[in-house]
Amino acid sequence: MSPRTANTAVSVHPLLAERWSPRSFDAAHTVGDEDLVSLLEAARWAPSAYNRQPWRFLVGRRGDSTYQRILDALGSTNRFWAGNSSLLVAAVAAERLDDGSPLYGAAYDTGLAVAQLSVQAHALGLHTHQMGGFDRDRLRASLGVPEGYQPQSVTAIGSLAPADLLPPDLRARETAARERRPLTETFFAEQWGTPLPVGQDG
Amino acid sequence: MSPRTANTAVSVHPLLAERWSPRSFDAAHTVGDEDLVSLLEAARWAPSAYNRQPWRFLVGRRGDSTYQRILDALGSTNRFWAGNSSLLVAAVAAERLDDGSPLYGAAYDTGLAVAQLSVQAHALGLHTHQMGGFDRDRLRASLGVPEGYQPQSVTAIGSLAPADLLPPDLRARETAARERRPLTETFFAEQWGTPLPVGQDG
Repeated sequence: MSPRTANTAVSVHPLLAERWSPRSFDAAHTVGDEDLVSLLEAARWAPSAYNRQPWRFLVGRRGDSTYQRILDALGSTNRFWAGNSSLLVAAVAAERLDDGSPLYGAAYDTGLAVAQLSVQAHALGLHTHQMGGFDRDRLRASLGVPEGYQPQSVTAIGSLAPADLLPPDLRARETAARERRPLTETFFAEQWGTPLPVGQDG
Repeated sequence: MSPRTANTAVSVHPLLAERWSPRSFDAAHTVGDEDLVSLLEAARWAPSAYNRQPWRFLVGRRGDSTYQRILDALGSTNRFWAGNSSLLVAAVAAERLDDGSPLYGAAYDTGLAVAQLSVQAHALGLHTHQMGGFDRDRLRASLGVPEGYQPQSVTAIGSLAPADLLPPDLRARETAARERRPLTETFFAEQWGTPLPVGQDG
């Protein structure tokens, strides 16, 4: 159990408890084809409303042009550390059905698919860091995302490197205590705001 | 490996590969407090943009009034089978920041949190079935979901029961082949629509 392990009231599967979002990735690490496909399959087999699978993904491997274009769309702080990751994956959600009517729930389903990809990454001994801070218009333009699709996130995937390789400001964030809102303020029963009567906050 | 296991080109962690969304749940099964808290913790420790944790959950256990109110909000087909599940969890996403400005990405983050809950459910030997088909206004009213929050999904969680306990129409859906769009139509590189050059479709 690392100091980054989630502080849970009861035991949670290690693939979840030991997941966290680092900024220090090993710039020498690469992901082989078989592991890469396992990440894609984990996302592909996620559930979705009416099995619509409203997600698409743009996948860059460090050194290729897709990776560089996704990296270039990130905000400057993210760009600094994310360029050491082995993969950058942009997740995109459909906004409309085939008949042009609005497709609700696509962002929800896409988040769900990326979560499955992240679980598989951890099963492979990798770490992931999802980002919302990127230039959607730039990403759309450089990778040809068409109208009717909306970029949702960019996920950096790679092998963890020691935090002391980071500059001081990022190192502080890398080692800061992990926190979440208490169970009692997140899980309700009877009425909104009434804590579900189980458990103790960890 | 069951006939429901995802047909993947390469091996994927069993918690993902063996996940599917049944309709046949054991109406005698209950989830104990420790397991329930582990499901909540799995969701609580999900990542979110700026660690905003824009999710809240309403949690019903079969036999209690929260469960009944969530069940009553489901469409009639879902209501028929979901009432045998051990838990019904409604996931709700915040739509605004504290200052009233729009909160983007909350649905995405909420889907991600429910995915983590589902992985933990499978780690406990349970199954989950997420639903988008429910009456949001009815759920809002019966459980007091305030303005500024939007119900996203209801997840049934429980122990799998034999498919032959279902009526014929649901039994057919329970045993139909599981399908997903091919890898080549989901994962792109270089430009939108250009298949990422790895793997083979399973």
